[in-house]
Amino acid sequence: MLLSEVATHLKSDFIGDDLEIGSMNELSLASHTQLTFATHKKYAATLSSSQAKAFLIPQNLIEYLPEGSSYIVCEDVSISMAYATKLFAPKLIDFDAKDVVVGDGSFVDTMAKVENGAVIGRDVTIMAGSYIGSNVVIGDRTTIYPNVTIYRDCVIGSDCIIHASTIIGADGFGFSHTKQGEHIKIYQNGNVVIEDDVEIGANCAIDRAVFNSTLIKKGVKFDNFIHIAHNCEIGEYSIFVAQSGVGGSTKLGRNCVVSGQSAFSDHLDIAPFSTFSARSGVTKSIAKSGGVYSGYPLMDHREWRRLQAKIAKLNS
Amino acid sequence: MLLSEVATHLKSDFIGDDLEIGSMNELSLASHTQLTFATHKKYAATLSSSQAKAFLIPQNLIEYLPEGSSYIVCEDVSISMAYATKLFAPKLIDFDAKDVVVGDGSFVDTMAKVENGAVIGRDVTIMAGSYIGSNVVIGDRTTIYPNVTIYRDCVIGSDCIIHASTIIGADGFGFSHTKQGEHIKIYQNGNVVIEDDVEIGANCAIDRAVFNSTLIKKGVKFDNFIHIAHNCEIGEYSIFVAQSGVGGSTKLGRNCVVSGQSAFSDHLDIAPFSTFSARSGVTKSIAKSGGVYSGYPLMDHREWRRLQAKIAKLNS
Amino acid sequence: MLLSEVATHLKSDFIGDDLEIGSMNELSLASHTQLTFATHKKYAATLSSSQAKAFLIPQNLIEYLPEGSSYIVCEDVSISMAYATKLFAPKLIDFDAKDVVVGDGSFVDTMAKVENGAVIGRDVTIMAGSYIGSNVVIGDRTTIYPNVTIYRDCVIGSDCIIHASTIIGADGFGFSHTKQGEHIKIYQNGNVVIEDDVEIGANCAIDRAVFNSTLIKKGVKFDNFIHIAHNCEIGEYSIFVAQSGVGGSTKLGRNCVVSGQSAFSDHLDIAPFSTFSARSGVTKSIAKSGGVYSGYPLMDHREWRRLQAKIAKLNS
Repeated sequence: MLLSEVATHLKSDFIGDDLEIGSMNELSLASHTQLTFATHKKYAATLSSSQAKAFLIPQNLIEYLPEGSSYIVCEDVSISMAYATKLFAPKLIDFDAKDVVVGDGSFVDTMAKVENGAVIGRDVTIMAGSYIGSNVVIGDRTTIYPNVTIYRDCVIGSDCIIHASTIIGADGFGFSHTKQGEHIKIYQNGNVVIEDDVEIGANCAIDRAVFNSTLIKKGVKFDNFIHIAHNCEIGEYSIFVAQSGVGGSTKLGRNCVVSGQSAFSDHLDIAPFSTFSARSGVTKSIAKSGGVYSGYPLMDHREWRRLQAKIAKLNS
Repeated sequence: MLLSEVATHLKSDFIGDDLEIGSMNELSLASHTQLTFATHKKYAATLSSSQAKAFLIPQNLIEYLPEGSSYIVCEDVSISMAYATKLFAPKLIDFDAKDVVVGDGSFVDTMAKVENGAVIGRDVTIMAGSYIGSNVVIGDRTTIYPNVTIYRDCVIGSDCIIHASTIIGADGFGFSHTKQGEHIKIYQNGNVVIEDDVEIGANCAIDRAVFNSTLIKKGVKFDNFIHIAHNCEIGEYSIFVAQSGVGGSTKLGRNCVVSGQSAFSDHLDIAPFSTFSARSGVTKSIAKSGGVYSGYPLMDHREWRRLQAKIAKLNS
Repeated sequence: MLLSEVATHLKSDFIGDDLEIGSMNELSLASHTQLTFATHKKYAATLSSSQAKAFLIPQNLIEYLPEGSSYIVCEDVSISMAYATKLFAPKLIDFDAKDVVVGDGSFVDTMAKVENGAVIGRDVTIMAGSYIGSNVVIGDRTTIYPNVTIYRDCVIGSDCIIHASTIIGADGFGFSHTKQGEHIKIYQNGNVVIEDDVEIGANCAIDRAVFNSTLIKKGVKFDNFIHIAHNCEIGEYSIFVAQSGVGGSTKLGRNCVVSGQSAFSDHLDIAPFSTFSARSGVTKSIAKSGGVYSGYPLMDHREWRRLQAKIAKLNS
């Protein structure tokens, strides 16, 4: 889509050369064929060094644009960005994609739905009631239990096991908010990538990225009811016990252990080999690897135990 | 069904004129064609002013009945009421309903199931593996992702998005308890009504009302794993972050924001523009709009932060 | 499978007579045709009195074996045990099982999948999108709502109601951990047994046992989003409110009441008639029946209320 067409949809003018735009991305990651955006002066330096050529920006950031940029000046960049994501959203189903490819030795139940463009590896099992979206890739020897849904464009590794009713690649939870209190959907145009040897329990939900990928790395194991928000990255061999959740863009290092009903805020960076006891509530990044934590607010596990003993004494 | 037939099923006598009963309802809402019930003397005034003509009541409430009432005297009204709901429960599938109506431009996958009586609007997408129950109504331009289940008689607005494996209209959790500790099912004969422009994440569950409707109002946005119990009402443009739940009959005003893993008790009334931080546990109604809350027990957010600082000091 | 073949797969030698092994089981329950294992000296007495004839053990437990035992000496019994479970795992689908049997008066939607070997009782309803695995047994008058998944070999009683997208019999969450931090799957070769008159809400997950059965007893009622781990036993007429979970091998007595968002650690024994208020976190067994509990750490409910009042005063 041409930048001029984006401007028309946003009912704005654009300034600079017209450009063919392939997709959108966040400021620090956008390439020269992607449309990006800056919402606030605090991003001025990132804006100035951006590789992108096309921008949605407020009036007061024009001066920080890289030389030769094309741009659309927006009254509310966050709202315009949300509307723009809709223009780049892929269709729900890509009917025109190539025929499904299924590797030797694979079993796809006749009551599973596999959309065009999907590529299924060797010795894969896809059971009844599952849905494999357009252009999904599934590696060798992976098992998809019944009633699993994998949204379009997601990638599943080899030797994975995905249990029933788990959802891979539903939309991340992202909206821009109008002054009237309405919520404008930010279309989630990224995907989910699951590496090899991952097992995901029943009734989990791993959301697709708004741009780029939500990433579940090699050897991760999820119990049931795990919620992973958009753009998270879960490190190799990490383990999540039931009913835990991770907020958007949070990254865990390798071999983290997360006990049941725990939760992480968004945009955190968690060191590898961190262990969280049941119902941990993690709201800050953790830089030092190998710690053991408990509680909400979170603290060192031994400290939490001492604190609980102190609290119990209040009653005596 | 005649009131005399209800009495026969309950193995009780009825007193007064025999009446044709269309359905059941709670005391304060029952019309003159509905069967209702009163369990306790504290409802005497509501009973006296009821519009209903047919009642299940204990012996000690006969004197408070409106003049000309027909009634069945029950040893345990709560148990009799539960048995009576079964008599008025609609069949699981209405095979005799009219043919499905699908509006222009809509796509219904051949691997989706749409029961008779359903009415699908224009430009709707219903993906594989979804189930649309008898007499369900779906508005224009709504998207139903794969493996969604919408139970019979529910109503979905226009421009809605319902993500995979979400359940709309499963039975609310209601039972009457015998003295022997058994649980007698109260059939959930109401429905769910979802207004326009609502987005519901993956693996949510919004239960149907016992009588009348569970209501999700215009512009509401739910993340994944949201649990809404029977007879709730969620106000316009409210937002729920993942793994939160609301107990039966609780009402939230417009533009509430509920962060992750929060929960509300049943029968609360929450003022509009209330904000709840992560893992809030709300057990009392809130009358003042615009507050920000945290914790369980719930308190003002700033108070909660101060309290956490004080608690942390116990360890020093 | 012969014990010698197991040894070959584990790349170990076996000592003693070769034996035909039917399945695996834990030490205290294994019969003379089952392979079992002991990981630690603390199980020496149980080992000595075991009914089994075939063992995976470390070098230092050889002396405690019952006379005439056959055994494989393992460097890491826990890892070898995990690999061995794979040898005894049944196929995902038993295509060679007998034709499905459906009792009189039952309705199975043509868009439900029922694998060979399943036995469906009388007057059962199985709605579209549901999956009934190989050799599953379903009792009379049971209702299976749409998109339910019942894994192979599970047993559902009579007069049960299972709501949409609930998963019965997915794998319990069990792994052995290598020194390099990888997780070796312990195949979950048991099943789930659900007795009569059980109702299970939408989007629940009840995991199959690693060996033997996860057991949900007569008259139990689950709200939505309940997680029951492998090898649990839930006593008759117990009630679970939404978003609660139970860790592996925990047993609850009859008529327990578990309020919303509560959780139980694994390997607990909970007395009958115990009541847990919302968000209880239960980490220790409870021997005395009839108690009422709250909080995490858990305490007597009245004590918890007093404590919350004391805590609130810290802020004054």
